[in-house]
Amino acid sequence: MNKEILNPGERLDDLIINNMKIIQHEDEFRFSLDAVLLAHFATLKHGSAVIDLGTGTGIIGLLLAARGAGFVTGIEINQRVAEMASRSVALNGLSQKMDVINADLCNVKGYLSQGKYDLVVSNPPYRPVGGGLINPSGSLAIARHEVKASLDDIIAAARHLVKYRGRFAMIHLPERMAEILKKMSNADLEPKRLQVIYPKADSKPTMVLVEGIRGAKAGLEVLPPFIIYKDDGSYSDAVMAYYK
Amino acid sequence: MNKEILNPGERLDDLIINNMKIIQHEDEFRFSLDAVLLAHFATLKHGSAVIDLGTGTGIIGLLLAARGAGFVTGIEINQRVAEMASRSVALNGLSQKMDVINADLCNVKGYLSQGKYDLVVSNPPYRPVGGGLINPSGSLAIARHEVKASLDDIIAAARHLVKYRGRFAMIHLPERMAEILKKMSNADLEPKRLQVIYPKADSKPTMVLVEGIRGAKAGLEVLPPFIIYKDDGSYSDAVMAYYK
Repeated sequence: MNKEILNPGERLDDLIINNMKIIQHEDEFRFSLDAVLLAHFATLKHGSAVIDLGTGTGIIGLLLAARGAGFVTGIEINQRVAEMASRSVALNGLSQKMDVINADLCNVKGYLSQGKYDLVVSNPPYRPVGGGLINPSGSLAIARHEVKASLDDIIAAARHLVKYRGRFAMIHLPERMAEILKKMSNADLEPKRLQVIYPKADSKPTMVLVEGIRGAKAGLEVLPPFIIYKDDGSYSDAVMAYYK
Repeated sequence: MNKEILNPGERLDDLIINNMKIIQHEDEFRFSLDAVLLAHFATLKHGSAVIDLGTGTGIIGLLLAARGAGFVTGIEINQRVAEMASRSVALNGLSQKMDVINADLCNVKGYLSQGKYDLVVSNPPYRPVGGGLINPSGSLAIARHEVKASLDDIIAAARHLVKYRGRFAMIHLPERMAEILKKMSNADLEPKRLQVIYPKADSKPTMVLVEGIRGAKAGLEVLPPFIIYKDDGSYSDAVMAYYK
């Protein structure tokens, strides 16, 4: 059966969560732990309307649908990846709970109405164009570098889509944390929750999770450190808690 | 000998660092671990001109003088506390390395020239007025709440005093981290180093250390988590490394 739903170059991966499966392509950006961390970090009320900016394979949306979102909309600019994500939605029997739109999130004002979503999430490209060696593959560059959408674009899209008192949650690089907090605050998506992700208990962080609330006043809750690996190199209990 | 240098209500505490001593008063704000953490976190070049905004008992300045500062100026609004700090400087034989000015840091433009300091440090009052129960003692309220100097005042004073490419280091509450990073960046004291202080490896942080560089471009180095206590309640090796 699996063979029939896969195109050449694609593979079917097990999410190890709720028996979910996801279609990925060898040549495209494949999801990482970052997406799993964000899907669990975001504050989700049961039945919420959720939008995932740059959904890729759909991993975050699938996990949020499994966590109880009312409906998830994924926006993905890469046509081939958006189409794979749609098949993953169907494969997991979630067609009533999630939809994938093949579109550019920078133009979201043109095709989605304002202030409708309870939660906007994004695992965006982390690095500015010119901020690192650009991968020669076009679609990988788009997923990793701000070729098509910058931090400003993501924040502007989130600000357009999220309800008053709704939430915007993102995972990003620690080196950009000051910039992110400032830009979210300036866009009235006031940062309210933050967690720093450290690979080991004695290492510098590699990621930061941040959630803002539209229209909230200043005041940030910083959560306990999230440590990915134990000293012996195995996943920490915190990570393993997401795989059950 | 100790009795002779102490006024009624004062006590002589051992810093447990370089055999240094410090005079403190039972009724005044006494230094805490926060000051020790900041004094070690700040990037100090040997021979630097340093200023400590709201120096209190002088603890941070004394530690920075011991770490190799060229000269430290402490600013303290509380006359009794400033005078105690001056006696602590003399007691430790550091009169050639540190001076305490009894003045209001909000008026620093009136009595200190612009852009002269390599490093500005501050362990400021953490809580806005109205942001917590104000301690009835006037001088304690000034040390803990923004009665006399707000975050904006501290940042404005630091911006006035620090050289181009000089540094401003502060310890503050995690709940104000987004506000701090935004205000430092807006004042051209771009946040470049940050460390989150967690009491235990699984607890929410109680403090955050941040250092900005005047005129730097954006890009933040987040350091490994600083954990204060081991699981058994004793100080971590990281803390003990400061006491030798």
